[in-house]
Amino acid sequence: MSEKRTEIDQLGEFGLIEHLTKNVKLQHKSTLKGIGDDAAVLAINENEVQLVSTDTMIEGVHFNLMYTPLKHLGYKLVATNVSDICAMNGTAEQITVSIAVSNRFPIEALEELYDGIKAACSVYKVDLIGGDTTSSLSGLMLSVTVLGRAKKEDVTYRNGAKEHDLVVVSGDLGGAYMGLQVLEREKEVFNANPNIQPDLDGHDYIMERQLKPEARVDVIQFLKELDVVPTSMIDISDGLASELMHICSQGKVGCRVYDEKIPIDGKTSMTAIDFNLDPITCALNGGEDYELLFTVKQADFDKIKGNPHMTVIGHITDASEGLYYVDKNGSMVELQAQGWNHFDKD
Amino acid sequence: MSEKRTEIDQLGEFGLIEHLTKNVKLQHKSTLKGIGDDAAVLAINENEVQLVSTDTMIEGVHFNLMYTPLKHLGYKLVATNVSDICAMNGTAEQITVSIAVSNRFPIEALEELYDGIKAACSVYKVDLIGGDTTSSLSGLMLSVTVLGRAKKEDVTYRNGAKEHDLVVVSGDLGGAYMGLQVLEREKEVFNANPNIQPDLDGHDYIMERQLKPEARVDVIQFLKELDVVPTSMIDISDGLASELMHICSQGKVGCRVYDEKIPIDGKTSMTAIDFNLDPITCALNGGEDYELLFTVKQADFDKIKGNPHMTVIGHITDASEGLYYVDKNGSMVELQAQGWNHFDKD
Repeated sequence: MSEKRTEIDQLGEFGLIEHLTKNVKLQHKSTLKGIGDDAAVLAINENEVQLVSTDTMIEGVHFNLMYTPLKHLGYKLVATNVSDICAMNGTAEQITVSIAVSNRFPIEALEELYDGIKAACSVYKVDLIGGDTTSSLSGLMLSVTVLGRAKKEDVTYRNGAKEHDLVVVSGDLGGAYMGLQVLEREKEVFNANPNIQPDLDGHDYIMERQLKPEARVDVIQFLKELDVVPTSMIDISDGLASELMHICSQGKVGCRVYDEKIPIDGKTSMTAIDFNLDPITCALNGGEDYELLFTVKQADFDKIKGNPHMTVIGHITDASEGLYYVDKNGSMVELQAQGWNHFDKD
Repeated sequence: MSEKRTEIDQLGEFGLIEHLTKNVKLQHKSTLKGIGDDAAVLAINENEVQLVSTDTMIEGVHFNLMYTPLKHLGYKLVATNVSDICAMNGTAEQITVSIAVSNRFPIEALEELYDGIKAACSVYKVDLIGGDTTSSLSGLMLSVTVLGRAKKEDVTYRNGAKEHDLVVVSGDLGGAYMGLQVLEREKEVFNANPNIQPDLDGHDYIMERQLKPEARVDVIQFLKELDVVPTSMIDISDGLASELMHICSQGKVGCRVYDEKIPIDGKTSMTAIDFNLDPITCALNGGEDYELLFTVKQADFDKIKGNPHMTVIGHITDASEGLYYVDKNGSMVELQAQGWNHFDKD
């Protein structure tokens, strides 16, 4: 090992993988897209491409088993990976799951985890085709690769947004983040006094958003039925602001989004206010909603307007105009990514 | 979690994954083979299938960084996964690598790891198409998915061995295991007295077998050139005995192998004897050689005899005749799997 020592958190999660893989050369003409989007894209036949995405979840970093039921964790593991295939405008078909687990876990715990995995596989029509289970020295680590397909002409990359395109999000935002805040608060209360029962009443919606998110396969289906192929797409795992920055930097464009347009469920807003947080900030920076962020041509506006599952929140501008959201008073605020960076937490 | 608690090591690594995935239903007709072979097999076009395999390596379980250079580890990670595609008689084309790493590691360490990964990708002509890097609370965990292709008529499963087929292994066996013994011995010496330099002289071959194994892509190429499609195949990661048992149980056959035929390099034998170990036992039960074990029809014998990369070590029998090796004295000894079981080590 060389003498120099540069700490990992100097680069952050995205910077690190970019740094490590910057010189990667692709040798197969079947590899249409490698690292850098929600999934890699491989040529497989005349009409379709294969989509491949991989993801890892680590106990204590990505989930806390104190308040995450293992069945929910298994479900979420599959759903969040299916979401990556949705973000390419494709359909997930197969999944492999690698589990490393310490002997702190009995077989019954792994059965619960697998119950969740199998339930999600059934809901999303995904075949579990590979399973590697090994021991770890501590904790639970889950690694997944999901395979999907899309018609060649449907594949949607992060980099296709053009000036004047509309910026659209599915569902509503910030709920998963507020669910996490409630769970963390109740964990603190419990740690201080284990006799107090957790108070999760009235928080079902945001709790489910955090513990059992769904991949928006329905939105991909709606888009197909509406004959809309987005110009760019990404799933919202790290927060709207962070994902908008990916879409804009990869497309070399700017954007304006309007905070009054950002869809936030009433329960999310109320909980945010309870916590003295601005709901808009939670929607912009809270992660793990697994909604889709995409751009469409203006000509497609009529097809999607009024659709209860999709909201136009702004438009794409020339890169020189920067990335801004416009608040209720008409003030322009520059977008800052404050999404999750797991390396900061160490 | 239910009240019952069954310890993981009651089932072992293979038993556990079999138990957890026994009810998995496949829903896509494109999924030709799911869990249970070296790789899953997916239909992708008229002539070819896609092969998918996944594998995880955990610090302290699968590797020890005290004597494993990170560059070698990266190389081995790719090579051992390519080996799984070889074991299906296919060609690896793409790979995804997920890394979970604690902040004990500086960026320079990850660069070394990636140097090894990239070197192997170049040697094996594999495209690195996905990389997920996340933080772990402790240690280094590596998870890989490799994708490959094979012509439909070439795909070789574990379960195709028939009575009278010949049992063949590539290369030589036991070297990686003896390399590990030397490394472990020197580690003990070093721990007892850090001033004593490790004595690895003369152990280059077995050291390389352990630290930098190669996938036998050359053997797959030879088989193509010789126009031999094996009737069954598996790669030797857990030891010859264990892999023979997979081939026989999946093919519902028995086998006879002859210990004087088992290929063992002279350096492996000498080191085994130094350690008061029987070289044959090391070859039968030592893991991580990543050679190929396969069966061919008797009619193909002329094509492979005399090939320096392949050795016929026995033949397949009816299941009722059991699994035996025949020692130098002609005694029949029943095969027992004593391969690696990482769960035993906890």
